[in-house]
Amino acid sequence: MTSPSSPTHPPKRPIRALPPGRSTDAQKDKVTAWFAELRGAICAAFEGLEDALADGPETPELAQAAGRFERTTWDRPEGGGGVMAVMRGRVFEKVGVNVSVVHGEFSPEFRAAVPGAETDPQFWAAGISLVAHMRSPKVPAVHMNTRHIVTSSRWFGGGMDLTPMVSDASDTESFHAAARAACDAHDPAYYPEFKQWADEYFFLPHRNESRGVGGIFYDYLHSGDWEADFAFTREVGQAFLGVYPELVRRHMYEPWTNAEREHQLNRRGRYVEFNLLHDRGTQFGLRTGGNVEAILMSMPPEARWP
Amino acid sequence: MTSPSSPTHPPKRPIRALPPGRSTDAQKDKVTAWFAELRGAICAAFEGLEDALADGPETPELAQAAGRFERTTWDRPEGGGGVMAVMRGRVFEKVGVNVSVVHGEFSPEFRAAVPGAETDPQFWAAGISLVAHMRSPKVPAVHMNTRHIVTSSRWFGGGMDLTPMVSDASDTESFHAAARAACDAHDPAYYPEFKQWADEYFFLPHRNESRGVGGIFYDYLHSGDWEADFAFTREVGQAFLGVYPELVRRHMYEPWTNAEREHQLNRRGRYVEFNLLHDRGTQFGLRTGGNVEAILMSMPPEARWP
Repeated sequence: MTSPSSPTHPPKRPIRALPPGRSTDAQKDKVTAWFAELRGAICAAFEGLEDALADGPETPELAQAAGRFERTTWDRPEGGGGVMAVMRGRVFEKVGVNVSVVHGEFSPEFRAAVPGAETDPQFWAAGISLVAHMRSPKVPAVHMNTRHIVTSSRWFGGGMDLTPMVSDASDTESFHAAARAACDAHDPAYYPEFKQWADEYFFLPHRNESRGVGGIFYDYLHSGDWEADFAFTREVGQAFLGVYPELVRRHMYEPWTNAEREHQLNRRGRYVEFNLLHDRGTQFGLRTGGNVEAILMSMPPEARWP
Repeated sequence: MTSPSSPTHPPKRPIRALPPGRSTDAQKDKVTAWFAELRGAICAAFEGLEDALADGPETPELAQAAGRFERTTWDRPEGGGGVMAVMRGRVFEKVGVNVSVVHGEFSPEFRAAVPGAETDPQFWAAGISLVAHMRSPKVPAVHMNTRHIVTSSRWFGGGMDLTPMVSDASDTESFHAAARAACDAHDPAYYPEFKQWADEYFFLPHRNESRGVGGIFYDYLHSGDWEADFAFTREVGQAFLGVYPELVRRHMYEPWTNAEREHQLNRRGRYVEFNLLHDRGTQFGLRTGGNVEAILMSMPPEARWP
């Protein structure tokens, strides 16, 4: 989940190389600052939801204190590192928000597949990634990730997708409306393309089923206007921040049954299958010696295969 | 877990082709009968352990009836099928014993990697595979699998490996002693080679840790004496039957703590990681359209990533 990109999924359009000698330092700093800012805003919103559970009816979960994020920094021996923020709360059973800024050289096996790495294996990558597994089966699980990669080319990637445990048409509608609004503010072609990309990506072929109700997924975004691409990537983060806490608030006070909880734990089994069998970010991260704890922070706290 | 072989792991020695026109039907029948016989013996032994729990101290598990295997047959659209036997009991939280006999053609992507399939893609494969996840963290989990593959060559493969949740040197010793005795009865070179193969195979590189305490793993066994190779494969099954129920009996009456149960559920998370990220049989089975339920029968009933 902290991987810079999905090198086995080639770009649809060739990515322009940067002019020789062009410095990208200023933009790297802006991107790095944004991911940290977004992480702060998300963590604050989620901690607020932990507090807000007290405003609802008496439930066993209230016996537990409101959750707070714990941050752990990690260094990547080859260069860079990250901060893993994890909260085990009473609304958020387990949520990880990872920010990483790494740099180094792609190994020979990846060079051919990464745009701009064929000639120069040096890369820089920063990203934020988040997976939330909720205590209540009424509240959907969610994943969000955005990233910026710089090789001898550069691009943005990311997306967000929703995994309800109990299907709710209005949640799906709200989530997609937020994704669409973020896209439409930048390019009317984005939403249809990125929605389809998510539908294709978040699919378990061995089960012939979707992971959830989709969302948007994009990669190799390089319109030629770096500022516009960065603005879109910020907009995806803001859309997430606008919609997901609202969905949590919508359902966090509802009671649930043991059968719904069982169903949630079984659906989480499918989530594990997707992440370990199919998610290119996870496989890439593990194969390239990424931080195991940060990569597997996406695993649910508990899952079942009955 | 029901996959015929691990085509990405090439044989160490070339495998002789069968003489043209040579019928292998009689041997296929013998192998098929053996796997069914072994399945029957294992299921009977495991059901006996379910009953035997009543001979011990009063525990909450005794409120549940002794488990019994339920069998489900499945057909493979391309040819053959199998029988999945599953028991959800009070000693065996979840155990699957699958027997399959399948035939067909290897797809072009696998032909080059499978001995004897380069020239003729037809194959026949039969096997038994078993994974047991135990209710008590004091009782080790176990995996056993043996198989026979026929292409224009033919060979045996299989093994057994133990995954204790609470380490116990004498269990490890008993399990390896049984594996060694099975090997030594056939060839003194087998045990050291097959033990090392298991140590290499049942390893999680991303965690830099072993899945359990190993056992034996062998593949492409083709000594030139088919009867001897078949006898060895039967011996592995008998060794399993001799030692594993004994290990269960050794620990099934012991009490355990919540902390030990938590530890077990966390260790099962690593088991899931191994099976989905690294197990070639699982990946091969899923990629070649094997029976998903049978392949993923190896998943634990419950696992945690705290």
